[in-house]
Amino acid sequence: MKAIQETKVKNSRYIVIVGCGRLGSHLANQLSRDGNSVVVIDRDEATFNDLSSDFSGFRIEGDATQRAVLQEAKLKKADILIATTHEDNVNLMVAQVALKIFGVPHVLARVFDPKREEVYAQLGVDTICPTSVAADMFLQAVVTGCAEREGAQS
Amino acid sequence: MKAIQETKVKNSRYIVIVGCGRLGSHLANQLSRDGNSVVVIDRDEATFNDLSSDFSGFRIEGDATQRAVLQEAKLKKADILIATTHEDNVNLMVAQVALKIFGVPHVLARVFDPKREEVYAQLGVDTICPTSVAADMFLQAVVTGCAEREGAQS
Repeated sequence: MKAIQETKVKNSRYIVIVGCGRLGSHLANQLSRDGNSVVVIDRDEATFNDLSSDFSGFRIEGDATQRAVLQEAKLKKADILIATTHEDNVNLMVAQVALKIFGVPHVLARVFDPKREEVYAQLGVDTICPTSVAADMFLQAVVTGCAEREGAQS
Repeated sequence: MKAIQETKVKNSRYIVIVGCGRLGSHLANQLSRDGNSVVVIDRDEATFNDLSSDFSGFRIEGDATQRAVLQEAKLKKADILIATTHEDNVNLMVAQVALKIFGVPHVLARVFDPKREEVYAQLGVDTICPTSVAADMFLQAVVTGCAEREGAQS
């Protein structure tokens, strides 16, 4: 019984996602489906079309670098903020504001420029760099593909 | 000795990379550093500035959807083609031409729209979708972060 209760708690987080592009909308749909309370913020209302029909969270059209928008999203009570816009500077700024001003305990950001990852880490922001991740996977696929072909030939 | 020879063979592939953006240049630098013969193709000569000073491969400024450009890259003798441009359609077209016309044995492509991955797979193209990969990592980080915080509180 305890395990079930814990899973339930884990699945009802209050999560604010900034940016509703391919990554943001994918995360919003999945996290909402998993039973979390999700708020998505994007400057462009049209991006909300990528939210699935069963998305049960809130959509806020606005600029997340403005504090009023983050207040509207009730960021103070958020367990997690995820910054997924296409601009590293926006992601870093929003992440910092979430951490330092709104006291969000867990802040994650997408970062495009791998050189910035270290700075983010120093500021307490968890980062994921899709380019680095994809590059590692391609390099792995090159090695694996070559090994497979050599195995098949021998 | 055999192991050393095999490693050497593995590290001297002829690899053509289409697109020299963040991902393409990262792969080109790494694969060149690993001892492979690398050719990079991009329409925009300025992107070659991201190649490192020890990059020992060739740069071709041109449109990889034109067969003459692929011939200039000696695609016929390539072991691997990697399509990394920002356009799914370009990547798919180049991948198909490499497979069917130039007979490249191993073709990899970046795909932005996860819905296209199945089509690519049916056509024999290995794909990596940075958005899907990044999304999985964010979801994992959300779960891990929550578990860590719960562990710290209990």
